[in-house]
Amino acid sequence: MQFADRLQNVETSAIRELFKLLGKPGIISFAGGFPDPALFDADGIAQASAAVLANNPGPVLQYGATEGYGPLRDGIAGFMGGKGATVAPEGLVVTTGSQQALDLLGKCLISPGDKVIVEAPTFLATIQCFRLYGAQVIGAPIDANGVDVDKLEALIEEHQPKLVYLIPTFGNPSGATLSLERRKRILEIAVRTQTLVVEDDPYGELYFDAAPPPSLLALSSQVPGSRDWLAHCGSFSKILSPGLRVGWLIAPPELLAKAVMCKQFSDAHTSNLTQAICAQYLTMNRLNNTLAVVRKTYAERARVMAQCLKRDLGDAIDFNAPQGGMFFWARLTGANGKPANAGEFAKRAIEQLVAFVPGAPFYAHDPDLATLRLSFATADVAKIEEGIGRLKLALG
Amino acid sequence: MQFADRLQNVETSAIRELFKLLGKPGIISFAGGFPDPALFDADGIAQASAAVLANNPGPVLQYGATEGYGPLRDGIAGFMGGKGATVAPEGLVVTTGSQQALDLLGKCLISPGDKVIVEAPTFLATIQCFRLYGAQVIGAPIDANGVDVDKLEALIEEHQPKLVYLIPTFGNPSGATLSLERRKRILEIAVRTQTLVVEDDPYGELYFDAAPPPSLLALSSQVPGSRDWLAHCGSFSKILSPGLRVGWLIAPPELLAKAVMCKQFSDAHTSNLTQAICAQYLTMNRLNNTLAVVRKTYAERARVMAQCLKRDLGDAIDFNAPQGGMFFWARLTGANGKPANAGEFAKRAIEQLVAFVPGAPFYAHDPDLATLRLSFATADVAKIEEGIGRLKLALG
Repeated sequence: MQFADRLQNVETSAIRELFKLLGKPGIISFAGGFPDPALFDADGIAQASAAVLANNPGPVLQYGATEGYGPLRDGIAGFMGGKGATVAPEGLVVTTGSQQALDLLGKCLISPGDKVIVEAPTFLATIQCFRLYGAQVIGAPIDANGVDVDKLEALIEEHQPKLVYLIPTFGNPSGATLSLERRKRILEIAVRTQTLVVEDDPYGELYFDAAPPPSLLALSSQVPGSRDWLAHCGSFSKILSPGLRVGWLIAPPELLAKAVMCKQFSDAHTSNLTQAICAQYLTMNRLNNTLAVVRKTYAERARVMAQCLKRDLGDAIDFNAPQGGMFFWARLTGANGKPANAGEFAKRAIEQLVAFVPGAPFYAHDPDLATLRLSFATADVAKIEEGIGRLKLALG
Repeated sequence: MQFADRLQNVETSAIRELFKLLGKPGIISFAGGFPDPALFDADGIAQASAAVLANNPGPVLQYGATEGYGPLRDGIAGFMGGKGATVAPEGLVVTTGSQQALDLLGKCLISPGDKVIVEAPTFLATIQCFRLYGAQVIGAPIDANGVDVDKLEALIEEHQPKLVYLIPTFGNPSGATLSLERRKRILEIAVRTQTLVVEDDPYGELYFDAAPPPSLLALSSQVPGSRDWLAHCGSFSKILSPGLRVGWLIAPPELLAKAVMCKQFSDAHTSNLTQAICAQYLTMNRLNNTLAVVRKTYAERARVMAQCLKRDLGDAIDFNAPQGGMFFWARLTGANGKPANAGEFAKRAIEQLVAFVPGAPFYAHDPDLATLRLSFATADVAKIEEGIGRLKLALG
């Protein structure tokens, strides 16, 4: 059987091979990108499901509009308004997780050979998703305050990309948050260079202390013309439940209309039932309480992980403690003959029954082989202390 | 904003424009492709949902495997076994409706310029889906017994297509069912010409009296080598609920692995909750009763529609009464100066407050402008009698 040429652009990720090892008994995993299921408001979701199926279930079980279930589009518009971004219900389309928003953007915008700029490092599935549409993916360097805007601007001038993809808040894998000043500059650059910026924001609600800077979407009202060059992907996966597969795409009208057309032939529409559950949940005044518990739990886990990393790994590792999200991004220093290659270190860690993800696959090119990602979302404090202790043993 | 070249291959369908007129008060619609929501087993679905959310809801609300939720893959394998097709759970991937199965096949197989053969007429969203991947879509003629196999064979020889897409049982829009003899010949041709055949089977359970011939998938055990050239798309949309968005793709191992990789970057996985609901529902021994009611109801509606068409439209229209599914496919004869163009007739029908879909958009090329599709699934018997009466008035 002869497959499409586009499949030559991607391969099954190295991470997947690693994940096969995670079934080892007794392993402590910092490798995943999953939220902690113990924090899901399963009771609230069950109540929401019962309510939508009890009361006029026909429309929820029938085919629905490709654009999304009306009450949920209203609910998301209200939710975004609460975060300072004015969005009309008809200004967004509900997607099957925000992964589908990325897929629709790729389908609508990327012809083979087109260039796309992402952060280096960035979300692995974004790189692969865009490559399947033939994109040449170019990485822009980042630091603790997110993408380096001067270098991003130069890369835009040089490559004239179809789009720039950013996770500005509590990035995956970087944990970094783009500063307010850089956010405004990026919007200005988008307008000046007429370049679409895609803001992926799955983690923005998972802050520990202060809320992060406003999203690019919220800030766009301060930068004339920038809304015309901005798409925003949101998701219930990290704040309610990933198993529902409900996300959304906010985009300028012409792009949104193309995305809806493509979605019609991708999956017709997102499950009406899970959309209705999300819509109902938003009306139940439980989300704030749920998020408060998640924030407190993740903040404590991040604090402990930072402490343990300093105590147990010392100058063998460099990292910036994140202010929210789910990830530490760290770099092996190689000091005193300790490991400097995260892939090798990962194998030694598995032998000690602790797992993390080496950073290399998160780079579109020129990976920094000393980097690694540690998730603090799913292991509790005791497991984090034990797991980082095992990392110390793996260091040798 | 510059969009991808692939968008130039499709346009928003003429049908969508027609559907905007369906909101007219008092209209009787035979235009839709929806099942009757009054026949959904909403109680059973609500019970299934409550059960899966009460009992260990964590895995159902968490991220899941791209391949599908384990208990549902088991359930679908059992369901297919009941229809005479041996399928292992790992031989299928759960998709977000069977529309996504088509999308994944397109993504995996079709490079720009590749040829694809479909029935003329066929499901509109298949034509558009494959065109978005750059396919040149070629129609093979059909009759009351499905696709003309001699002509299909000649077209395969001539065009060497990437795949042949068929709806062999109660086709949309044709209502036609491929004969047993033709089914076997198609499997033989697939093997001889090494051409992938895609069997889309959303309607096979909706038979009126006798069950239809076995699916191509079930018959493949009788034609050596044919399973290697066969993909099968199934769906809960017409037998349980389209709003759940749960379908499946069965394909040879190498193609299935590629489809799973593409799905990872399309929507990560299908909603675990709706998958778990379907899995639970299959264990509840309600599906047979639900289907028995649907079959009886649709059979009665189809019988009445055939009667009324004969009585009210007489020799102005030709059609073959279907033995299952949801559609009549008809052709205006133009006899005695009556309309011969279904697009014009559709406008006159709307004035009489009755709607159907003209057949032209269902052809990839060279449409037969006299054809039209009438759905008998959603209007009850009284509405069908009244609606066909209005069609008589529209005839003039």
